[in-house]
Amino acid sequence: MADRLTPRAENYAQWYNDLVLRADLAEHSDVRGCMVIKPHGYAIWEKMQAALDGMFKATGHVNAYFPLFIPKSYLAREASHVEGFAKECAVVTHYRLKSDPEQGVVVDPEAKLEEELIVRPTSETIIWNTYRGWIKSYRDLPLLINQWANVVRWEMRTRLFLRTAEFLWQEGHTAHATREEAIEETERMLEVYRRFAEEWLAIPVIKGIKTASERFAGAEETYCIEALMQDGKALQAGTSHFLGQNFAKAFDVVFTNKENKQELVWATSWGVSTRLMGALIMTHSDDHGLVLPPKLAPVQVAVVPIAKNEEQLNDLRGYVAPVLEALRARGISVKFDDDDTKKPGWKFAEYEFKGYPVRIAVGPRDMENGTVEVARRDTLEKQVMQVVDLDEKVEHLLQAIQDNLFQKALAMQEAGTRAVDTYAEFQEELEKGGFLLAHWDGTPETEERIKNETKATIRCIPLDGDTTPGTCMVTGRPSARRVLFARAY
Amino acid sequence: MADRLTPRAENYAQWYNDLVLRADLAEHSDVRGCMVIKPHGYAIWEKMQAALDGMFKATGHVNAYFPLFIPKSYLAREASHVEGFAKECAVVTHYRLKSDPEQGVVVDPEAKLEEELIVRPTSETIIWNTYRGWIKSYRDLPLLINQWANVVRWEMRTRLFLRTAEFLWQEGHTAHATREEAIEETERMLEVYRRFAEEWLAIPVIKGIKTASERFAGAEETYCIEALMQDGKALQAGTSHFLGQNFAKAFDVVFTNKENKQELVWATSWGVSTRLMGALIMTHSDDHGLVLPPKLAPVQVAVVPIAKNEEQLNDLRGYVAPVLEALRARGISVKFDDDDTKKPGWKFAEYEFKGYPVRIAVGPRDMENGTVEVARRDTLEKQVMQVVDLDEKVEHLLQAIQDNLFQKALAMQEAGTRAVDTYAEFQEELEKGGFLLAHWDGTPETEERIKNETKATIRCIPLDGDTTPGTCMVTGRPSARRVLFARAY
Repeated sequence: MADRLTPRAENYAQWYNDLVLRADLAEHSDVRGCMVIKPHGYAIWEKMQAALDGMFKATGHVNAYFPLFIPKSYLAREASHVEGFAKECAVVTHYRLKSDPEQGVVVDPEAKLEEELIVRPTSETIIWNTYRGWIKSYRDLPLLINQWANVVRWEMRTRLFLRTAEFLWQEGHTAHATREEAIEETERMLEVYRRFAEEWLAIPVIKGIKTASERFAGAEETYCIEALMQDGKALQAGTSHFLGQNFAKAFDVVFTNKENKQELVWATSWGVSTRLMGALIMTHSDDHGLVLPPKLAPVQVAVVPIAKNEEQLNDLRGYVAPVLEALRARGISVKFDDDDTKKPGWKFAEYEFKGYPVRIAVGPRDMENGTVEVARRDTLEKQVMQVVDLDEKVEHLLQAIQDNLFQKALAMQEAGTRAVDTYAEFQEELEKGGFLLAHWDGTPETEERIKNETKATIRCIPLDGDTTPGTCMVTGRPSARRVLFARAY
Repeated sequence: MADRLTPRAENYAQWYNDLVLRADLAEHSDVRGCMVIKPHGYAIWEKMQAALDGMFKATGHVNAYFPLFIPKSYLAREASHVEGFAKECAVVTHYRLKSDPEQGVVVDPEAKLEEELIVRPTSETIIWNTYRGWIKSYRDLPLLINQWANVVRWEMRTRLFLRTAEFLWQEGHTAHATREEAIEETERMLEVYRRFAEEWLAIPVIKGIKTASERFAGAEETYCIEALMQDGKALQAGTSHFLGQNFAKAFDVVFTNKENKQELVWATSWGVSTRLMGALIMTHSDDHGLVLPPKLAPVQVAVVPIAKNEEQLNDLRGYVAPVLEALRARGISVKFDDDDTKKPGWKFAEYEFKGYPVRIAVGPRDMENGTVEVARRDTLEKQVMQVVDLDEKVEHLLQAIQDNLFQKALAMQEAGTRAVDTYAEFQEELEKGGFLLAHWDGTPETEERIKNETKATIRCIPLDGDTTPGTCMVTGRPSARRVLFARAY
C-alpha cells in the first residue's frame, strides 16, 4: 500500500497489473498461465455467480456437472470446433507416476492411456454426447442446463483475469425442438448478460452479432455484448451462440417430434467467465485503486472508529452499535474495524484501495455532535452526516453510487463511440481509442485487411442503432449498415 | 419409473445403482471413471454447498481459487504425500493437438511440456507454495482459506458418488502460528462436519482419529467422522487433518513471530466431497426410491391438483393459490404441478421416487370440505388436513420429517454398534455388519492382520465413549481402549 499506484495515464497496462496484485484480487501462480484468485477477488466473483445463477434459474435453467476430461475423438467430431480449439489443448496422456531411483518421481510409461483425454476448453462435445441419452421425444425438450466450471485453453501470453490458461466460467447448453426456439433462447440469454452487465457490473454494453470470422468454433451465429474500457479498448463481456444442429449431427442426437418423425435437435450455448473481473476493474477503477459497484462489493460499508484510548473506543463501540444493527437489518454488509493494532489512516488507505463503496469514520467529536463522517469511494467525497436515519441515508447512497458508476461509464462509452466515413479518418480516430461505427462491405477479405493494417476488429454488427446503408470505407463497395470496430482485449 | 426398484434386501449394491440412475441423480459418462451429476443430484449438492459455505464463513473462513494443475516436482516435495497420490495421478504432458493426414487429430509431439503437470488430486502442495508469498509475519496468521473445486484421483473401479476419478469437493487449507492453534482448528472443523452431517444430512456420525496407516498422506493426525449405512458398512463422511509443519518445511514457509524470530508455519486441511451424496442416499432411501431430509431437498413440497377438466383445474388453482403463497412466505420451496399432459398417478410416483419430502394432493371434494391430502415421504403416511393454517402445519411436518430421519438413522447406528471381546466373536458379528468396538494392541501389524483376514478396518479411535483399557482380541496384548471397526465403503 505504501507505493503509489502507476497512474492510468502513464501506463494503463502497468496500472491494471499493479492494481490487481495490490488490491489482493489475483496473482500469477508458478504454473504457467494459471492464476490464483485471492480471497478479495474471489468474493467479488462469488457475488457475480450468485446474481447470474439467480437470473439463470429465474429463466427456467437448472445446474448440472459434466466431466473435466473429453476424449480426443469427441473433440474431433465437429470439424470446425476441433479446428478452433486444437492449438490450445492441455492433453492428459498418463494416469500414474512412479518412483525412479535416479530421477525421483517420473511418469509411469506403462500407465499410458489408450486414448488421450483433453482438459475441457468448453463442453459442447461431452455434453452433447450425454444429451443423446437424455433426449428421446419432444417431451424431453427444451433441456435448459447450465454448468459452473473451470476450463483450460493453453495461452502463451497471459494477463490476470483477461487471458489465463485456466479460468472459471459458466456455460449454458440448451436443446430445443425448433430453430426458432433455439434462436429465441440465444437472444434471451444475451439479454440476461446485458442486464447483468448493466445492472450489476454497472458496465454499459452494445449487443450485437459477430462476423463469420469471429464466430465461436462450431456455431451458426455468435451473439455478444461488447464493453468499452477506460483506455479506449473494447472487451467482449459475454457470448451466446446459436449452434444450429451442428452438435446434434456430430453426436447423433435426434428426437421424435409431435408428428412422430425423427428430427435433429437444435442447440445453444452461452458463457461468461472470470474475464468479467477484468472488465469490472478496467471500467470503474482509478489511480487510487479499485472501485466497486455496491451490488458486487464483498463488504459495502467499512466503519472505522478513531479513538485515543480503550475507554474512548468502548464509547464509540456503543455509539455505533445501533447504526451497525440498522444497516445490517437493511441487508447492507458492514465491517466494523476496531482492530487497534492498525492505525485509522492505514485502514482508510486500505479500504479506499480495495474499493469499499462507503467508509464511515467516527471519533469522539462525532459522539458529541450526533454525527459521523461518510466517504464515498466513487467520487472520494466526504460529508458529515447526522446519525439519525443513517441506515436509510447509506442505503440511498449505495444506490446513488451504483447509478453514478453506470452513468459515468455510459458517458465514457458514448463519448468514445463515433461514426467515421473514410479509412483515413478511421485510422486517425482509432489512435484515440473507442468504438468506431463504419461501413464495411461484408467480406472476410476486407475485414482481414483492416485487422492486419490497423489491429482493429469488427466487435459486432449491432442489434440496435443506425441501419442506413452506405459504402465500405475501404473498398467503396455497398455496405448494408455500419458495424462496430475497435482494438480489443 | 415403470420398473420396480431392486429391493435393498435382495441386492443392496444394485438397489443403490438403480436408485442413483433412476432418480436422475447421476450417471456414468463415457470418460472412464468420470460421472455426470444430473440436475436433480446437482440441486442437492448445491444445497449442501450453501449450508457448508455458510458454516465455513461463520467460523471466519474465506474462499479462494488455486490452479487445477500441479507441477510434478511440487507434488514430489513432501515424501509421504507423493507416495500416497502417485498411483492415481492424471498427467498432462502436452499442450496442443494437430491435424494428421492419416490419423485425423493427434497430439503434437512438438508441444511437449518441459515438466509434466498433475491434475490436482488435492491442493496442499500448490497452496503451500503460494502461501510462502503471503505469510511473512505473525500478523498474517491465521490464514483461513477454503476452496470449492474439482479434483482427480484415478480409479479403476468406480461407483457413482462413492468412488469416481473426478469428484467435486471443498478443501480448507489453514495456516497458524502455533501447534495448539492448528490442532484447535482441526478439531473445530471436524465439529463443523459433525454438525453438518447430523443437522443437515440427518446422518449421525462418530468422531474419531485415524490410525497411522489410515492417515492422510502428509498429515500428522487425521480426524474423521464415520457414518453407518443401511447395509451395515461404514462410510467416512469427512476428514480434518493436522498437518504439523510438514508442508511448511517442504515449501519453506516461515514467519517472524512476536519475538522477532523465524518459525515454520503450522497447517491444517479438511474436506468433504460429493461422496456425501452417496452417504445421504444410503442412509435414508428405501425400496420406493430416494428419501431426502427436507433441509436438503431441492423442492420440499409438491402440490398436485386432480381435476377432470379445465374448469375444475382452474377452480383448484384458485383454491390452492393462497396456500402456495403462505408456504412460500415461510421460506418453504413448493412446486405446483398443473401440467395436464401427465396424470396425477404418474406425478405421485415421480415425486415419491425422487424424494420430495411432502406431497399434497387436492381434488374437487377437498374444495368442498376445505381440506387437502398430505403425504409424507419418510413414512409414506397420508392424512387429510384442513386447509386452515396449512402453511404452519406443513412447516412443522417438514421439521418432524427432518427429526424422524435423524432419529431413525441414529437408532440404526446404535443398534448396529456392539462391543465384542474375542476375535471369534468379532468375525462372527462382522458378518452381520455394523460398527464393532473391540480392543486392539495399537500395532500396525495387528491392524493389517485383521484387515487381511476379515476385510474390516479400524474406522477410528473414537474421541468420545468408553476409554477403559483391556486386552487385544487378537494378540492378547494390552489395549489402551476399544476402537471402532467395520467393513467400509
